This record gives sequence, structure tokens and C-alpha cells, in this order.
Amino acid sequence: MTSPSIFSYDLQATNDAARAGIFHTPHGPLETPVFAPVGTQGTVKALTPSQLEELGASLILSNTYHLYLRPGDELVREMGGLHKFMAWQGPMLTDSGGFQVWSLSAINSIDEEGVTFRSHIDGSKHRFTPERSIEIQQNLGADIIMCFDECADPFDHSYNRSAIERTHRWAERCVQAWTARNQQALFGIVQGGVFDDLRRESAAALTAMDLPGYAIGGLSIGESKDDMYRILELLHPLLPSHKPRYLMGVGTVEDLIHGVARGIDIFDCVLPTRIARHGAALTHSGQINIRNLEFARDSRPLELDCDCYTCRRFSRAYLRHLVKAQEMLASTLLSIHNLRVLVRLAQQMRLSILAGEFQSFAANVLGQLKAKYD
Amino acid sequence: MTSPSIFSYDLQATNDAARAGIFHTPHGPLETPVFAPVGTQGTVKALTPSQLEELGASLILSNTYHLYLRPGDELVREMGGLHKFMAWQGPMLTDSGGFQVWSLSAINSIDEEGVTFRSHIDGSKHRFTPERSIEIQQNLGADIIMCFDECADPFDHSYNRSAIERTHRWAERCVQAWTARNQQALFGIVQGGVFDDLRRESAAALTAMDLPGYAIGGLSIGESKDDMYRILELLHPLLPSHKPRYLMGVGTVEDLIHGVARGIDIFDCVLPTRIARHGAALTHSGQINIRNLEFARDSRPLELDCDCYTCRRFSRAYLRHLVKAQEMLASTLLSIHNLRVLVRLAQQMRLSILAGEFQSFAANVLGQLKAKYD
Repeated sequence: MTSPSIFSYDLQATNDAARAGIFHTPHGPLETPVFAPVGTQGTVKALTPSQLEELGASLILSNTYHLYLRPGDELVREMGGLHKFMAWQGPMLTDSGGFQVWSLSAINSIDEEGVTFRSHIDGSKHRFTPERSIEIQQNLGADIIMCFDECADPFDHSYNRSAIERTHRWAERCVQAWTARNQQALFGIVQGGVFDDLRRESAAALTAMDLPGYAIGGLSIGESKDDMYRILELLHPLLPSHKPRYLMGVGTVEDLIHGVARGIDIFDCVLPTRIARHGAALTHSGQINIRNLEFARDSRPLELDCDCYTCRRFSRAYLRHLVKAQEMLASTLLSIHNLRVLVRLAQQMRLSILAGEFQSFAANVLGQLKAKYD
Repeated sequence: MTSPSIFSYDLQATNDAARAGIFHTPHGPLETPVFAPVGTQGTVKALTPSQLEELGASLILSNTYHLYLRPGDELVREMGGLHKFMAWQGPMLTDSGGFQVWSLSAINSIDEEGVTFRSHIDGSKHRFTPERSIEIQQNLGADIIMCFDECADPFDHSYNRSAIERTHRWAERCVQAWTARNQQALFGIVQGGVFDDLRRESAAALTAMDLPGYAIGGLSIGESKDDMYRILELLHPLLPSHKPRYLMGVGTVEDLIHGVARGIDIFDCVLPTRIARHGAALTHSGQINIRNLEFARDSRPLELDCDCYTCRRFSRAYLRHLVKAQEMLASTLLSIHNLRVLVRLAQQMRLSILAGEFQSFAANVLGQLKAKYD
């Protein structure tokens, strides 16, 4: 048995493919759909845990690759694990490091055993294997951990064929290395680029392992929206309904709605905090950049009906001043707003599903979204 | 009558020269002694108003020079004043800009009318006069505003003689320009460098104007501690006991204690937040830099008995990680701690004065302070 009952997922309601549920973790029940802010280096940039709690965040993500390099997973373990280290009391997720060695580091070689790469910080040489990734993630101690996977150009069929086959062999090794089964839920990652046949194969191979949950990787990295939505529709009936599904790296208003409409429960993305640090805010009608002169004397909040701390207390004029004056508080306040928009959207989708009104809710939000965020 | 009763100061208790009192302002009663965090550009760097409230800040300072240049005092007035603009609901103080044109900008000329200077931001040319400084401060709308003064090298007697005489003439002009007398308390600034005769003259000239409060300027800018303490002792009997006294730009544990012991009620300083952004923390036994390797695996808080948010939730190891990883949260958490140390010290001094125990309290804190902060 690879799925301990502690990580049970209660499916509470469905509206067509859209799902509302509760995923039970050692750090409390996680209500889904949910959007997870990203805390790459053991902190969601510019925010305290209290600010994250206040804006309604329930799950946060940290990056195994970054924490392994700095401050080191052994140090985090000695300090009592990542929850204690960063003072986050709710559910937490770590990725496997597979995507970061592919996207951030200089890879020296990928072989059947693992990946040798150079640190993006100091160029030092390191090696990840499936076993090492799980060991690091067990040292960090997140509630949800990920299988170490091989990432690939989503449009190259032959590369994706070999990559998913290796990813499945690596997943078997991750399952073997995964000893903290009552503390951490190991999720498999379905890969296969934009190719239906490979996605089907990947879903079949991973679901056969009966893991506590499944992630969908290799999307939102350059393929079209149509490709993304088609893959999600393809996978919906292939993934077990009694396990949570996590769409990795997706975080726009539009994509959250389309994702939930296709059966996704968990999302994460750096977008809302990254664009915040460049002065951009999510609004009902699209993205605005608060640097623009038009906001210099605008006494309105970012969004008139937003319940976030930033919108309750500050004007666009003040936020523009902070950005122009290069004040750190600008990043804090814009991050609070942008995260609240996505966290609240996931909460509202959940409520609409429980009420049997997801379709009209989704149509209404998409109707207001006059401009795309991405 | 230049001192409206709204700005009355209730002297509640004295222990020798040390005073506990309440200064009444349009934004509530201000209990003294008090330490004011500095929000140069309309924000205490890296902190939200809620974080300032939580750490016990009751008075904050903003800089007229900076806000005049960016975003502009007219804009702040249009947005409802600085309280509303930066969402600070308690008492607020602005300086006159006199010190900043002297220390930050390239001064073109000082004449009897005012000062012509170039912006440190873009080199553009500007002019401050006493009337303009008061107009800007009235546009900003702080509870406590300052007379525009001429700053001088504290060791040059002949320059200080002419500077205080001009400062007194400018103070008369500031009083004339000061129309918002029921909303804003105008403080005079005693100058005169390290020279007893000039300080006496300056105190006499300004107290004759019967202003709502008095600041002591031109200290903590390079003179010795002995000079500073001697000047404070000299001024103590010369300043009216029923008006608050503000020692400008002073903000170490040691100086707060020595200042209160010599009759000071109000302090401000950028030091606690500036050193925080460089990884330094105030502790009972002096200043530590959290970057140091010795803290890498130190699971203790910055101070074992500190009640601040940072010390309640985070270890030295985590703070060191944030600083090393160049995370903004490091500045936020270290600023919270450092400000809490000085805000709490002022609160504790107040309580000790009310209890008649200031001398033993001060001796105890100074005894613990094995190393100097500055």
C-alpha cells in the first residue's frame, strides 16, 4: 500500500469536471480548489507568514533545488524542518528539483542514474538522482513531495517518449526511497509534452503506482492554451477521481478557471509575486502597471471591491509613489493584492462548485476579464 | 497665543530630569518618552502600517525634503494628506527639510531669504524658504511640524553664531506662515553646535516665541557623547517643563537612556531600520550581524526574551539564510526587531518613571549593554 489513509482526499462535490474536495495532511485539511503562493527560497518574497495567513493562503510551495543549494537541506532538517524554519504552520509542498535543474542550472549530463548540473549561484557541481531528490524533500519535510522527473521540450515527440519512460522508472525509484509515508504524500508527475499518446501512457504508468496524488507537469512552458486545455481534458478521466490533481506552474485568473473546469484541484505560480515586484497588479479587467502616469493622482484602490489589506488601506497614487521611489513596501503591498486575487478566486470557485453554480461563476469572471494577463 | 490648547503636554511624573508625559495631538494622545521610526519617503522602509502598530510604534516621522521632491506635497494634499496617503492613523511628525538640503543635496546658495539646492534624485534646482517649508509641511499635514533652520558644522563657533541668528529670524517667519495652528504643532529647533553660549542664546530666543514644543538639532552628527550629554544637561532647565522636547536624529539604546535621563521626551532615528537592511540586529549586549557564520545553525531567536514578531517566530539561522539569499523579508524581520527594541525601551522608561524607578532601570539596561551600538 503506497497511499496511507492520512492523506485521504474527500471529493465533496462536482460540477461536470470541476471538483471541490478536502485533502487531509499532517498540517491540517486542505480545501480545494486551491492556489499556492511560491516561496522559492523558504520565503514567499516580501511577505511574512502572518501576511500570507491574512490573505487566505492555505498551501505554499518551496523549491527543493534552491533550498538544497542554500541554506542546505541538512541544515533545514537540523533546524526542525522547513515548516518550523520558515514559521509556516499550514500544508506545504516541495517540488522535486527536476524543473529547476532543467531551467536554471547548467546541466552537465543526464543519464539513467540522474542529473549532474552546476549551481546557478556559484557554478559548483552537483548531482540529483531520484533517491537524492526524495532524501532532500524528506529533510525539508513538506506535506506534499514530488517525484523527480525528466523535463523535456514539449514539442519534441521522440525526446518526450524517452523522457516519460525514464520519468516512470525514476518514479519507481522515488517510491522505493520514500520512507516518510505517514508524514509526506508523494505525487507522481504526468509528463508527455503536447502529445496525447504520451500523456495517456504517462497517466497509465503513474496511476498504476497508486500514489496519494498526481501532478501534471510540462505545461505552461510555451505551448498554446488550446494544447494545455486539450491535455487537461484528456487526462481528466484517466486520473483517479479520489486523488488530488495538481497543475504545476499555472497561475493566471484565466488558467485557474479553465483548469478547475477540467478537473484540477491545486495550482501554484510565481507570476502574481513576480509581476508585483515589477509594479504590476491583477484586476478584474486585466493587468495594470501602477507605474503609469495615469495613476499618479488616482485615489482609488487597485480594485474597488477587493478585500485585501492593500486595497482596504492604500490608493493607486500611493502604490505608484512607492514603486517610483523604489520602496520595498511596493513589492509587499502588490504581492498581497495579487496573491489575494488568485487565492480568493480558488476559494470562490470552491464555493460555487459546492453550490452547484460553477459554470455561471466561471462565465461571469471570464466575461469581466477584458484583457488577458499573460 | 501661538500654542493652542489642543497641543497641551501633561507632565505626569519626573525622576530627577527624566519625564513621563502625554502630548495631545489631533491623532490621539502621545505617551512620552517615545521613539519614532523614520518613514523618509512616506513609508517606514519594508514595513506596513499594521506591522508598525503591532510593534508598538505610536509616532512616526516623514521627511519634508523627500516628499516635496517625490511625489510632491501638492499631490499628497490632493490625496487627503500624508496620514491618509500612507495609511498611518496615529501622530506623525515632519522635519523642515533644513537638515536634508544641508546633508543630501548640492546646495547652490544660502541667503537670508532661503536655500537654493539641487535635487539628489535628478539634479533639478529648487528653493526652500521658511515660508515654503511651512507650506509644504501644511500640505503634508503631520501633527508636529518643524521650523526651517540653518544647519552648521557643530565645531565652528562663528558659523554657528550666524546660523543660530538666522535660524531665529527664520523661526519668526515660520510662526507667521503657520496658519494650521489647531491641526499642527510647530516646534522650534535649538541649534548652536557644541557651544554652551550659543545653545543658551538659541534656547532663550526660541522659548520666547512660546511654541508648542522644542527640538534640539545639530547633535548626533559627529560630536562626542560628552558634548551631547553636556548640551542636554545645559538645556534641560532652559526649556519650559510644560512643553515636549525632541532630540532629533538620536536612536541608540545608550543615547535614548542618556537622553531621557536629561529630560528628552521624543527621539527619532533611521539607525534601527538602516542597519536592519544590512543584516544587523540590536541586542541586550550590543549589535550583532546575522550574516556571520556563527549563526548558520543557531536555532535561537535574535533575543531570547524579546516579544517582537521576529523573535517569537524565527531563528537566527533562518534570518541569516534570508540575508544571505538577499530576500526582502530579511529587511522586514530585522526592522521589526530593531524598532521594537527602541520603541519598547522608550515604553519601559516611561513605566519606570511613573513607578519612580528610572535610575535603577537605566543602570540595569546600561549594565547589560556590554558593547556599544554606535
